[in-house]
Amino acid sequence: MSSTRKRLVRAGVGGAVAIGTVALLAGTAFAQDEEEVVLTAGEEAAASVQAVLDNIWVLIAAVLVIFMQAGFALVEAGLTRAKSVSNIMAKNLMDFCVGVLAFAAVGFAFAFGPGGGFIGTEGWFLNSETFAEGWGNLSLPTFFLFQAAFAATAATIVSGAMAERTKFKSYFVYSFLITAFVYPIIVHWVWGGGWLSQLDTPYHDFAGSSVVHMVGGIAAAVGAAFLGPRIGKYTKDGKPRAIPGHSIPFAIIGVFILFVGWFGFNPGSELAADAAVPGIAVTTLLAGAAGGVVALLVVWLKEGKPDVAMAGNGVLAGLVGVTAGTAAVTNWGAVIIGSIAGILVVFAVFFFDRIKIDDPVGAVSVHGVCGAWGAIAVGLFAAEDSDFWKAGLFYGGGTSQLVSQIIGVLAIAAFTAVAMVIVFAALKATLGLRVSEEEEIEGLDVHEHGVPGYAPDIAMGESGGLASSKEMATT
Amino acid sequence: MSSTRKRLVRAGVGGAVAIGTVALLAGTAFAQDEEEVVLTAGEEAAASVQAVLDNIWVLIAAVLVIFMQAGFALVEAGLTRAKSVSNIMAKNLMDFCVGVLAFAAVGFAFAFGPGGGFIGTEGWFLNSETFAEGWGNLSLPTFFLFQAAFAATAATIVSGAMAERTKFKSYFVYSFLITAFVYPIIVHWVWGGGWLSQLDTPYHDFAGSSVVHMVGGIAAAVGAAFLGPRIGKYTKDGKPRAIPGHSIPFAIIGVFILFVGWFGFNPGSELAADAAVPGIAVTTLLAGAAGGVVALLVVWLKEGKPDVAMAGNGVLAGLVGVTAGTAAVTNWGAVIIGSIAGILVVFAVFFFDRIKIDDPVGAVSVHGVCGAWGAIAVGLFAAEDSDFWKAGLFYGGGTSQLVSQIIGVLAIAAFTAVAMVIVFAALKATLGLRVSEEEEIEGLDVHEHGVPGYAPDIAMGESGGLASSKEMATT
Amino acid sequence: MSSTRKRLVRAGVGGAVAIGTVALLAGTAFAQDEEEVVLTAGEEAAASVQAVLDNIWVLIAAVLVIFMQAGFALVEAGLTRAKSVSNIMAKNLMDFCVGVLAFAAVGFAFAFGPGGGFIGTEGWFLNSETFAEGWGNLSLPTFFLFQAAFAATAATIVSGAMAERTKFKSYFVYSFLITAFVYPIIVHWVWGGGWLSQLDTPYHDFAGSSVVHMVGGIAAAVGAAFLGPRIGKYTKDGKPRAIPGHSIPFAIIGVFILFVGWFGFNPGSELAADAAVPGIAVTTLLAGAAGGVVALLVVWLKEGKPDVAMAGNGVLAGLVGVTAGTAAVTNWGAVIIGSIAGILVVFAVFFFDRIKIDDPVGAVSVHGVCGAWGAIAVGLFAAEDSDFWKAGLFYGGGTSQLVSQIIGVLAIAAFTAVAMVIVFAALKATLGLRVSEEEEIEGLDVHEHGVPGYAPDIAMGESGGLASSKEMATT
Repeated sequence: MSSTRKRLVRAGVGGAVAIGTVALLAGTAFAQDEEEVVLTAGEEAAASVQAVLDNIWVLIAAVLVIFMQAGFALVEAGLTRAKSVSNIMAKNLMDFCVGVLAFAAVGFAFAFGPGGGFIGTEGWFLNSETFAEGWGNLSLPTFFLFQAAFAATAATIVSGAMAERTKFKSYFVYSFLITAFVYPIIVHWVWGGGWLSQLDTPYHDFAGSSVVHMVGGIAAAVGAAFLGPRIGKYTKDGKPRAIPGHSIPFAIIGVFILFVGWFGFNPGSELAADAAVPGIAVTTLLAGAAGGVVALLVVWLKEGKPDVAMAGNGVLAGLVGVTAGTAAVTNWGAVIIGSIAGILVVFAVFFFDRIKIDDPVGAVSVHGVCGAWGAIAVGLFAAEDSDFWKAGLFYGGGTSQLVSQIIGVLAIAAFTAVAMVIVFAALKATLGLRVSEEEEIEGLDVHEHGVPGYAPDIAMGESGGLASSKEMATT
Repeated sequence: MSSTRKRLVRAGVGGAVAIGTVALLAGTAFAQDEEEVVLTAGEEAAASVQAVLDNIWVLIAAVLVIFMQAGFALVEAGLTRAKSVSNIMAKNLMDFCVGVLAFAAVGFAFAFGPGGGFIGTEGWFLNSETFAEGWGNLSLPTFFLFQAAFAATAATIVSGAMAERTKFKSYFVYSFLITAFVYPIIVHWVWGGGWLSQLDTPYHDFAGSSVVHMVGGIAAAVGAAFLGPRIGKYTKDGKPRAIPGHSIPFAIIGVFILFVGWFGFNPGSELAADAAVPGIAVTTLLAGAAGGVVALLVVWLKEGKPDVAMAGNGVLAGLVGVTAGTAAVTNWGAVIIGSIAGILVVFAVFFFDRIKIDDPVGAVSVHGVCGAWGAIAVGLFAAEDSDFWKAGLFYGGGTSQLVSQIIGVLAIAAFTAVAMVIVFAALKATLGLRVSEEEEIEGLDVHEHGVPGYAPDIAMGESGGLASSKEMATT
Repeated sequence: MSSTRKRLVRAGVGGAVAIGTVALLAGTAFAQDEEEVVLTAGEEAAASVQAVLDNIWVLIAAVLVIFMQAGFALVEAGLTRAKSVSNIMAKNLMDFCVGVLAFAAVGFAFAFGPGGGFIGTEGWFLNSETFAEGWGNLSLPTFFLFQAAFAATAATIVSGAMAERTKFKSYFVYSFLITAFVYPIIVHWVWGGGWLSQLDTPYHDFAGSSVVHMVGGIAAAVGAAFLGPRIGKYTKDGKPRAIPGHSIPFAIIGVFILFVGWFGFNPGSELAADAAVPGIAVTTLLAGAAGGVVALLVVWLKEGKPDVAMAGNGVLAGLVGVTAGTAAVTNWGAVIIGSIAGILVVFAVFFFDRIKIDDPVGAVSVHGVCGAWGAIAVGLFAAEDSDFWKAGLFYGGGTSQLVSQIIGVLAIAAFTAVAMVIVFAALKATLGLRVSEEEEIEGLDVHEHGVPGYAPDIAMGESGGLASSKEMATT
């Protein structure tokens, strides 16, 4: 996601014009291309302000992305059972903490350090000399903050798919491995100057439909496959059973928080405060809304009821879908991409249920399937002109972009799948992946963490809480 | 909410002086008034940065407003019963998604498109040629994003008042109609160059006490009246019964989120990053705080207990109340407006209960009554000088502003009431508005959506969840 | 937190260089030091934009800090019992509302008004003449908004420690007293030009490890000590009993929200949009993550289970710990400070349990102990050069900073303890502090507030809700 590189890609695809050319003159990264330009003192002063603005904006965007951790935790908690809700919370809190530290220590260097086309090989522990040049106007701390938030997002997607049956210590180690090694390598390929960014028509994934979401979704699929389905998920005849989540309000509030966070995720990926940012926010908004409406209508037609959890996943599907092309597609393109994602997610959820990948929250469908769709969609819908009506819907540059997108999706999917098979196989062979049958049936909360998610007196008005307090008062 | 217009109004009323005059020179919208000015290269560069800053700030404000959707969902869920909580979530998620798409398709053009004094008649589907000039420094995507967030807010206010008894498909259609037609017409009158903005002393509603909140509140009253009260709300003698909400924590966290979102709602309505923005945030803060404290004290005196749900509604009442005058009143004015809103909301809640408008969350009182109060209050408290002590409390310009405010409130209320009667009458005659008695008693969640809000094993430590898992394990 | 003063301290300690020197030229506060400089029109225009940017950024940071109120409410609700959850919500909502009004009326003047070294004596009710100069580029409304959010934070820390047994009206009065008098005096000492900022080596607490958190934590300890432990907290033999919280999801979502809010709390305390801000965000991120991981590992080793509530408190401990030095320490320093805070919090929680300070949420340990640690740590870890590798880990300037830090911590702790003893003793003697035994056993919600936190039909699928609706339908 080097800003120079991304801007060039977008210029090639969408041709957006920045209001403030001063932004292009400000950063040292651009000095070599523009060395003849002499700025007046006033222009230099304005360029300094623009540089600060770029950093402040991306910092705020990073905070919005970090807020998505709360959204993921709520969606996952809401769509799973109460008896393992402390475990869900522990996993979500720890994959963020561990992920951030692992990414700071080595992941960031693997992703953005100088090196070959495959992996960065310098810059451990945020070495400020390695990264002295920054990224456009962004300083190392700003860029790291934003990227660390992304790394933690990729990590946490997996949590829901592996819910209700995974050993906590294995998940703890997994969090470290994906943010330290697996995710950074993919980032290096696409945003760190690696081979996918060096194709003749560079692979384009603006904000990470594939780099973040598909990586998380595939890791989730591998994890769920290694674990096997939850006890009781399938009847003796092999038919899937619905295991309803314990709190729809949690799930939908989580979706709202993720929607809010996505306005950091996508517009922040511009890595600058410029005129293109608001348009990115609008394509994000429209795709998410379209995904929600379409998924609701599809499941309503298919199953006879407007399933709200599916509508929530439809919103997320639309958002994941538009993430790769958010800066390159028209508003119409965004609505179409989101709508198709809203269809895909419904059928994908039923499909994975049928092939016995037990994914309690639909993470594989939302992030894996729609992440791949989003990256492919760039090759179909990236517009010559991002204006709403003027633009042709389909990419004018022929099929070369589409070919690059297919290459990229296949390569990322293959690498992630292989890497995660190694990770989960190693964990299974050493620490073990799955809890005991007894623990799974009784819930992970008390067994793994020593605390129930909901201590008894939640049921107000029942005698439980009252009696126990009275009892306590006299013993 | 055209920035030129609003700035003039505010200049006439409050006379705030912008720190950065450069902001006024930057936008093309101002070029015609200032055509003699020749800027140096440095000034032009600074104006470009200011233009970017304006867009980024309003985008961030829009994200805060979008976050309010989560706040509304939590307040409504918390103050209603668990058996219909999935339905509340579905309504809140869908009125946002449907509302955004409807507003993009036609609502925005009705609101801000060129046209007569009544309604815009051009600019469908965000036509970028129609809106090429932007709004001050704001580009079409920025302005649309902010306005779409507002439209969705107006739509979602109604959800709580119609809770626990409305057919989902009718609510779905309602969401489309209000954001596509009803709300945009009011916006056109006030912020889109329509007749209320053309009065000799233009009607002043800075951020939408009436345009957003009163419209939502009146639509809520009409909807609740058409539906009739929930089963069991009134005794055989016709006395109202309290039906307590199922989660006070949800309700109050919702209030906090709405408070946070209001810092986008009001300060963002400045539609620019300038020196007036922080003052708007402070009047917002003080009015919300005053509303909360006063409503708590009033209900404490009146009923003998400090009812926390009423305190939460008091905070919202104060915020709604100050929204129209937030940029035109002193800090003292804000405290007084918020305090009076905190009194009004308590008595209004009891009043609507008595006249058998069953509004489970108090939306009519908070948004309808206090929205009207806020718009009127502009005519009473708008200050010559917004400094805290120096300003006279009451508007110096005589009664002309007050007359305009009364005209505006009456016109908006009348139009909204008539339009919503037509909408709900049509829905009642076709799809039907109310669910069956059986469904209402058992809860809308399972009947309408096929999922309970809280699946059984939420009651940790009870045998339910455990037994069913064991049972599942063996069948 | 006067920006001039803080910048000087930081310059002396860390030596960060601002990208945009224009920022230094813009504010009137700097004019006296730079009076020979003549700016071109372009530079002046850029300085105006920078001034607006400074205000907008700090306003956004203030909104993030205000959002922390929701985080505190969720953490406290989650870690206490359901039967008093409405009371927790009422306290959190009201300490914010009351706190904001009290701080606007007198607290702000005590804190930042001109006066001696002990307390400000002018500027009541946000008198704009007293504060006409602003703070660097920040105007009175911006600076007040940020500081009011801080004052409310100090107030709300106490709520959790006094949970489940405090009379609401006494808490209401306490909220007023701490934000009107106690907290502002400490602020005056450190950020308002008072005696701790006038030491030869000025006391350094960048964002309030001691000023906000330790003050809150000590007030919490005094409050909990005055109240005595909850009924049932100790066995007849005097051994502490675990009273598990009623919702771990609430607690951990609260931690996430607090983490998000801290990106306003610490980076916003720079009081300007400049190049130092992102680095502050990164030390904040790393310390919070380290605190979470270390606390989890320590409690895992100590107690045998990875207690998620303790991990959440570990995150908060790391954040509290780094808050004083966030702008002065290296990334390594932040990781070490956070890690030590993560160890301290675990042992502190067990320690206070043992000495019969019943603090249901761990507020004394998190905010009191780790707040003190954070302030001391500035004397140990403030770096000559904030680059990651280049800097020596320990402070180069000898022991003078450490001595100042110890003086400051002791003085603040002593004053707060004495002041709060007076406050709580006075409340105990007049209104009374503790509810009746009956009320405590049955829960404060119904007795104090007249509403249960969770009305009966939360237990979906059980006959309760259904029956009562049916019953209601026929009576």
